[in-house]
Amino acid sequence: MQSVGGAEPILFVHSLFLSYIFTVSTINSHSDMARVYIEELSKHVGEEVAIRGWVYNKRSSGKIRFIVVRDGTGLLQCVMVKGMIPDDVFNHFDSLTQESSLTVIGKIKKDDRAPGGYEMELSNLQVISIAKEYPITPKEHGVDFLMDHRHLWLRSSRQHAILRIRHQIITAIREFFDNHGFILMDAPIFTPAACEGTSTLFETDYFDLGKAYLTQSGQLYGEAGAIALGKIYVFGPTFRAEKSKTRRHLTEFWMVEPEVAFNDLNDNMELAEEFLEHVVASVLKYRSQELKTLERNTKFLENVKKPLPKISYTEAVDILKKKGISFEWGNDFGGTDETVISEQFDRPVIVHRYPAQVKAFYMKRDPQNEALALAMDVLAPEGYGEIIGGSQREDDYDTLVKRIHEHGLPQSAFEWYLDLRRYGSVPHAGFGLGVERTVGWICGLDHVRETIPFPRMIYRLTP
Amino acid sequence: MQSVGGAEPILFVHSLFLSYIFTVSTINSHSDMARVYIEELSKHVGEEVAIRGWVYNKRSSGKIRFIVVRDGTGLLQCVMVKGMIPDDVFNHFDSLTQESSLTVIGKIKKDDRAPGGYEMELSNLQVISIAKEYPITPKEHGVDFLMDHRHLWLRSSRQHAILRIRHQIITAIREFFDNHGFILMDAPIFTPAACEGTSTLFETDYFDLGKAYLTQSGQLYGEAGAIALGKIYVFGPTFRAEKSKTRRHLTEFWMVEPEVAFNDLNDNMELAEEFLEHVVASVLKYRSQELKTLERNTKFLENVKKPLPKISYTEAVDILKKKGISFEWGNDFGGTDETVISEQFDRPVIVHRYPAQVKAFYMKRDPQNEALALAMDVLAPEGYGEIIGGSQREDDYDTLVKRIHEHGLPQSAFEWYLDLRRYGSVPHAGFGLGVERTVGWICGLDHVRETIPFPRMIYRLTP
Repeated sequence: MQSVGGAEPILFVHSLFLSYIFTVSTINSHSDMARVYIEELSKHVGEEVAIRGWVYNKRSSGKIRFIVVRDGTGLLQCVMVKGMIPDDVFNHFDSLTQESSLTVIGKIKKDDRAPGGYEMELSNLQVISIAKEYPITPKEHGVDFLMDHRHLWLRSSRQHAILRIRHQIITAIREFFDNHGFILMDAPIFTPAACEGTSTLFETDYFDLGKAYLTQSGQLYGEAGAIALGKIYVFGPTFRAEKSKTRRHLTEFWMVEPEVAFNDLNDNMELAEEFLEHVVASVLKYRSQELKTLERNTKFLENVKKPLPKISYTEAVDILKKKGISFEWGNDFGGTDETVISEQFDRPVIVHRYPAQVKAFYMKRDPQNEALALAMDVLAPEGYGEIIGGSQREDDYDTLVKRIHEHGLPQSAFEWYLDLRRYGSVPHAGFGLGVERTVGWICGLDHVRETIPFPRMIYRLTP
Repeated sequence: MQSVGGAEPILFVHSLFLSYIFTVSTINSHSDMARVYIEELSKHVGEEVAIRGWVYNKRSSGKIRFIVVRDGTGLLQCVMVKGMIPDDVFNHFDSLTQESSLTVIGKIKKDDRAPGGYEMELSNLQVISIAKEYPITPKEHGVDFLMDHRHLWLRSSRQHAILRIRHQIITAIREFFDNHGFILMDAPIFTPAACEGTSTLFETDYFDLGKAYLTQSGQLYGEAGAIALGKIYVFGPTFRAEKSKTRRHLTEFWMVEPEVAFNDLNDNMELAEEFLEHVVASVLKYRSQELKTLERNTKFLENVKKPLPKISYTEAVDILKKKGISFEWGNDFGGTDETVISEQFDRPVIVHRYPAQVKAFYMKRDPQNEALALAMDVLAPEGYGEIIGGSQREDDYDTLVKRIHEHGLPQSAFEWYLDLRRYGSVPHAGFGLGVERTVGWICGLDHVRETIPFPRMIYRLTP
């Protein structure tokens, strides 16, 4: 019984609309009672504790009143029986609206039937603030309505689960690189030129220096970092002013981009699969409860173990042709093509050696076939498409100059980048993983808009 | 003997200028030899290993040749003796210029006199790429020259030390919040309105929705997160289009902003001091070598333990007056004032309860004195000034509406923010810590420009 918007069914026996009032908390009288969060209750069974939170749900049954309280870390059912506690406390029940803030005090007992597994025998209740009529109700809300109320929508169990999994993914990403000797290398957001053309760039005035462009990728800076420090990762927001309204596009999204000196394409693919295995395993291990909340079938996630299947672009084209899709060798895959290819596998698949003509100027060509770039993409299963794109980089000075000119880019803007080939050039490779697409895939979401707290899209800049 | 730019003295007995050539690596013949990084050499004493890196330094003494190799993780002195290895290997020595890339193969032995503590008895050497004459030499370079070559400057030991400490600081920040149950809450970079006025905002066209402004702080979004999830932290780049040319100002800088539901000003100060203690202790523990490289006196860093001294704004004004500085109660502190105040302490000092008139609209007033805001700043010692700014937030709907109007802000832009007071308002507080100022303080740097890989300032947008 999950509405599309994620507001869980809620039963208000007395759904009064009360005017907005602010009641000064009297929590001070309990200041000797340590603050406890619901997620820590297993350590407090049998104790009297104070929990501060919000009314998530309430119901009434004869002389018994149930209040489900959320505190951001979990849900706790609080029970009070008329006559067992002072009337002035008991009578607060009627005034409590959804999302009203309060302190509940009482003894904790284990109860497997209760949400979260614990229950409070309420002995005191202090109202902090009675909420106005809450806009998000159990009825089905349209997506626009929920997005307009994103700051409130974030309070639902579904959004909590997604944000916790997002947090786990980002933690696991950093953990992987930190434990493998990579140094964090924050690339600049303001850049003087485009990495891959200027048509999809956001620009801003930059004092007397003309225009600055918001980064689309930290990769070129990451290459400087890899030659300086051996192994680095860039991790920050990136921006694309694409006029795409698909379920996979945000204008602002987070990307992690490792870059390793002396790595070739094979090393790069191995790094990607080891990395993905770690990230997915970390979510399966630490966020199983959240995956359950999202009703995520984890069968394919459990398959994410190295080695992942690897096919060449040409083999991928053959798959499309066998599926009766008209596709000409040499073109880039569209979203639908990626979906069809990835659906042939029960785990992520690595596609390598793309036609150079559809890839960026900085990619090294395959010495076995100059028409191919030493590129790799990782396509997520279940139709989620590309989550990783990477390559071995061109490390020969003359060849790189030639590519810059072939792509119609101004050499002057890339002199610093060419320096990396003038002074101690080495083979090197790296990739970028899009955080939001990865969150979408691991959570099993239909649309990337729920993967980040406040998504930005072509038609969405608020709240 | 440290030049201002950080390029370490280097002795080239044969400082030939060689034309740029690319020599194909023959490392494949050693592909069965595991890749080893210099930082791991303690595990390989007595073994023959291959190290891939760059020439940092070389010198010659009779029949002996020394090459100091850097691989991004450390320095390794490699020794070869004429007659002990094939002449064609030995003769590579003459061609090696600073920053040329190469593979060195040989047996590792412990040698306390060598940089890093280990030495390689070189048995083979393969040149990957001979570097052109390297622009950064032991002579003193001007700051502009070094900033123009920032992508190369990053290869110096001094910059390595700073970047590793930066990495450690960021790791420790995340570790602290992750271990204390905070959820990461990425705030949007594109915002429809300003948090604290519009004069210092970067703006960009945003499709058909008009202008978007680059965030100056994720705090308002963080407040929505705290009410949803209890405890959150925002961590990302923020932007200020201030026309400031001081040693403390970047146009783009990273900020971490925790926000906690039910915290008041006192809780906020305690959180800040516990947090700072953790971050500084982590650097002292894991990056002592890098602090030595920077010749950092760590005496004051070792004092960063809770509780930190706490003084009111009024007490801080008294300090200024006692120092003979003319300062009127009610004004905001300037950089010099902060320096004078912080110099009175041998550890960070927390200044609280500022005049409301110099602080932001969203700060709660002190119930004891309506002229004061429940604000707090943390000033770093040794003249580094403000590294943390925070406050308890106004949680009363009517008061907040009044403040918005008093500050001449459009209420319509803040309706979503007011919703946090309409629906379950609770006391809450948070703060922001500027990463670059913290890196500058902990590393003991004169200028914030060295605290981030590619700094952006009013007059600097490249490389």
